[in-house]
Amino acid sequence: MLKGFTAPRSPRGIAALVPPPPWHFAGDVLAVEFWNDPDVSVQILPLGVELDERGRGHSVALFTDYQFTAQNEEYLDPARYQCRGFSVLLDAVWKGTPIAWCPYCYVDNDAALMRGWIQGYPRKFGTVHLTRTFAAASMASAPLVNDGRFSACMSAHGRLLVQASVTLREKVERLVGFLDRRIVGRRYFPRLSAGMHDKPAVDELVRCVSDHSLITNIWIGEGELNFPEAYGEELEMLGPLKVGRAYRFSFSYSVTDIEVLADLTA
Amino acid sequence: MLKGFTAPRSPRGIAALVPPPPWHFAGDVLAVEFWNDPDVSVQILPLGVELDERGRGHSVALFTDYQFTAQNEEYLDPARYQCRGFSVLLDAVWKGTPIAWCPYCYVDNDAALMRGWIQGYPRKFGTVHLTRTFAAASMASAPLVNDGRFSACMSAHGRLLVQASVTLREKVERLVGFLDRRIVGRRYFPRLSAGMHDKPAVDELVRCVSDHSLITNIWIGEGELNFPEAYGEELEMLGPLKVGRAYRFSFSYSVTDIEVLADLTA
Amino acid sequence: MLKGFTAPRSPRGIAALVPPPPWHFAGDVLAVEFWNDPDVSVQILPLGVELDERGRGHSVALFTDYQFTAQNEEYLDPARYQCRGFSVLLDAVWKGTPIAWCPYCYVDNDAALMRGWIQGYPRKFGTVHLTRTFAAASMASAPLVNDGRFSACMSAHGRLLVQASVTLREKVERLVGFLDRRIVGRRYFPRLSAGMHDKPAVDELVRCVSDHSLITNIWIGEGELNFPEAYGEELEMLGPLKVGRAYRFSFSYSVTDIEVLADLTA
Amino acid sequence: MLKGFTAPRSPRGIAALVPPPPWHFAGDVLAVEFWNDPDVSVQILPLGVELDERGRGHSVALFTDYQFTAQNEEYLDPARYQCRGFSVLLDAVWKGTPIAWCPYCYVDNDAALMRGWIQGYPRKFGTVHLTRTFAAASMASAPLVNDGRFSACMSAHGRLLVQASVTLREKVERLVGFLDRRIVGRRYFPRLSAGMHDKPAVDELVRCVSDHSLITNIWIGEGELNFPEAYGEELEMLGPLKVGRAYRFSFSYSVTDIEVLADLTA
Repeated sequence: MLKGFTAPRSPRGIAALVPPPPWHFAGDVLAVEFWNDPDVSVQILPLGVELDERGRGHSVALFTDYQFTAQNEEYLDPARYQCRGFSVLLDAVWKGTPIAWCPYCYVDNDAALMRGWIQGYPRKFGTVHLTRTFAAASMASAPLVNDGRFSACMSAHGRLLVQASVTLREKVERLVGFLDRRIVGRRYFPRLSAGMHDKPAVDELVRCVSDHSLITNIWIGEGELNFPEAYGEELEMLGPLKVGRAYRFSFSYSVTDIEVLADLTA
Repeated sequence: MLKGFTAPRSPRGIAALVPPPPWHFAGDVLAVEFWNDPDVSVQILPLGVELDERGRGHSVALFTDYQFTAQNEEYLDPARYQCRGFSVLLDAVWKGTPIAWCPYCYVDNDAALMRGWIQGYPRKFGTVHLTRTFAAASMASAPLVNDGRFSACMSAHGRLLVQASVTLREKVERLVGFLDRRIVGRRYFPRLSAGMHDKPAVDELVRCVSDHSLITNIWIGEGELNFPEAYGEELEMLGPLKVGRAYRFSFSYSVTDIEVLADLTA
Repeated sequence: MLKGFTAPRSPRGIAALVPPPPWHFAGDVLAVEFWNDPDVSVQILPLGVELDERGRGHSVALFTDYQFTAQNEEYLDPARYQCRGFSVLLDAVWKGTPIAWCPYCYVDNDAALMRGWIQGYPRKFGTVHLTRTFAAASMASAPLVNDGRFSACMSAHGRLLVQASVTLREKVERLVGFLDRRIVGRRYFPRLSAGMHDKPAVDELVRCVSDHSLITNIWIGEGELNFPEAYGEELEMLGPLKVGRAYRFSFSYSVTDIEVLADLTA
Repeated sequence: MLKGFTAPRSPRGIAALVPPPPWHFAGDVLAVEFWNDPDVSVQILPLGVELDERGRGHSVALFTDYQFTAQNEEYLDPARYQCRGFSVLLDAVWKGTPIAWCPYCYVDNDAALMRGWIQGYPRKFGTVHLTRTFAAASMASAPLVNDGRFSACMSAHGRLLVQASVTLREKVERLVGFLDRRIVGRRYFPRLSAGMHDKPAVDELVRCVSDHSLITNIWIGEGELNFPEAYGEELEMLGPLKVGRAYRFSFSYSVTDIEVLADLTA
């Protein structure tokens, strides 16, 4: 009897690329709020998702540096389960409800790539780096203080796609009006049978469900953000016209479920 | 209107991880024939696939070093579309027809990873290296002659999973009785909705369909092969009890279709 | 006028692989104390360095996960200047003074590789991973508590060279009798001129000089350690017969100088 | 007795990052001839090296995809000894003799990085990709024919530094007036002792000596070339004002010696 939440399914079920939920995540974030051109960014939305009129073009660039575990102590296998990622989130609306639409997402790990596809995040490979802070003070460690500075970048296949920098201003207790929307993505798995290439086997709008969300050590500040143009990518079309606040914080959450909003194959 | 054969779907359709078929492949192969323990390898087969009684445990270890293109000159973007991979193929039978069952497959590229999942190959990330031959003779170039030697290896997440070496003996016109079975794999895409984790959205046995297959510069020889044990993998269970002939050749083929043998979700 | 502390020297001096000192480092460490076979490890010592008779074979396996900066805000370029490394340190004696001899050292970054050669660390490329702890509690984050567990591993060219795990027991104020020796290495740069291949241009025993050393958040516990055998490496000859205490802590220090103990070319 | 041509020196001498010469190389090249601004490129020359007045600014961008071996069958360890690189070569003059000055050089392998420093090539890490041709014809394989097209690119730390494309025109017997100068570089190894940071231990102008050079399968054509600006690099200052012919060929050669032209520490 073959076992495994994903391929490859195997006798013991440990070869599968992605272990079964619950999935647990813990890490650090650098995030920059920005506004892009709503006449352009509207084109990235699927049918049924609309830009949020209350902040047309309001978006978030999110860099994550995190560790993953499921039920089998995956956090003790850091070569396989540490990960860094980058996402863009657009303020949008689904049937009147504010959501964050995720048009692009990049990670540096194969298990994370596939978890993303299962969760509706359209992940591709990207190499992500974030300036870190360490417990021992040093010129080499970005401090969590007013004027503390952090950078982040993401490249795919040797091309720089995003560059950000953050200058901290003050510690805050909560993220107010930021990252407070549930993320909506699209699970999409095509058919390869002749004549069916545009009839995907799976095409669902899905809303993420996360448990035990914890956000802590929140610093707010100013950001810079740039999406350089790159061959074979369309990310630059969502690039910032204006940049707002920036954030650095630590997070954890768990995932065992997803909410299917619409089956687009029907 | 969003475009793209896969996610991420985008306004211009060039951001998609995988471009639409037809897909074209050209490259070099090192392959080693071996026999593993049929009492063990039978456990890797899905329902409906059986070991081939005429050569129980007969298998192939296949290392590929290749370039990909679709319709948009992808071969001129080698940072994105060159690839190296490793597959295991087991002699098996589907409803009386000889097939090659692919239980494990590794590649070093995100587009190839996802193409594999679409084709039914259960790909994970692996780093693959093959000794190469070059047009300019040198001690540094493995020669295509009797006694010419090549090596190949595959590692995932820093752990060596396969090591092979090949000593060439003679050039032959054709592969006889080798790699003459159509490959069967399993398209598998899980659900994440609570209570549905074991009810995949897609679970199909599929048989590959390839066009314009060309195999040339075929050398046959002797091989060595080893599947070292590695944490988090089950590949070693299919490791060789006996090693047979080895091959080095160049290949090309195209893919536009797949044959669905069975829908296992039904 | 060309500028640069190292090659490539250039008009503005910013292309150099390594910026000029002072160099600042901050990061996290997992370290495991062990004993290897002194009859074997004595063979890795250069002339003039002897095993320390008071603890023959006593050694340290040191995994580091750190950020680097010099004078030009290199910590804001994490893609270039973050680094993970692994070192072995042997208890030894130089002219009666206890030292830590560094026979092998691996890093995952080109600037760090060359800094090492300049400092006398014989660095090669290795891919290093360490379990991390994050500020937001989670099953995915290793906690700094009694029974908290961490792993670390190092691979080079796809072969696993070191695997370690640490179980924390208690927080301590200081490292006592551990990592209290100055590290001695060997600056070595060969000649390529015919007939001079064994007459290096630089061959110096050097003792590291570090300033502003800070070690904090120290946890002590139990370790496991393994040096798997690997083709093309000799690290396994220094592998553990017995494993002692293990440590997890954060560190920072600066480097502007080195002490030349002996010129071995003379 | 410790052995090894380089660090780490070890009991058996196989742990050394670089094995002793003779070194043998075989591979494929894409090369593009170009002219940069001599008023700028003159600034990259060390004392004693002058631009060649007969072709001020004439330079070559050289992409290599190759395999290395020394005396221990290193070509059978492709994970360690295959390599891709990029170099810039400027037409220059040393004491009246035409030379090719190598101001910048990038490779994707640690052993190659250090070999370069020993040979006077100022190597840093770069990720290099070249379109390949394979024996089996395919849309995925660049053909060696009139109108055959190849691309090459080099990135360092996720930033694209060079992009080139080549359209083949005709096969030729020999490289005439191209790559016919011996390469001159600079062996440079700094001191870290306080007060000596600008007094390198090794600073030599060296001219490469290669044996058994073989160039074959030469195709000549047209090129495009671009050096995008990138943070922390100065390569773009040598970028093309005009692009000339382009080449694709295979090569092999051996190295056992180097000619020291001048000791700049004196």
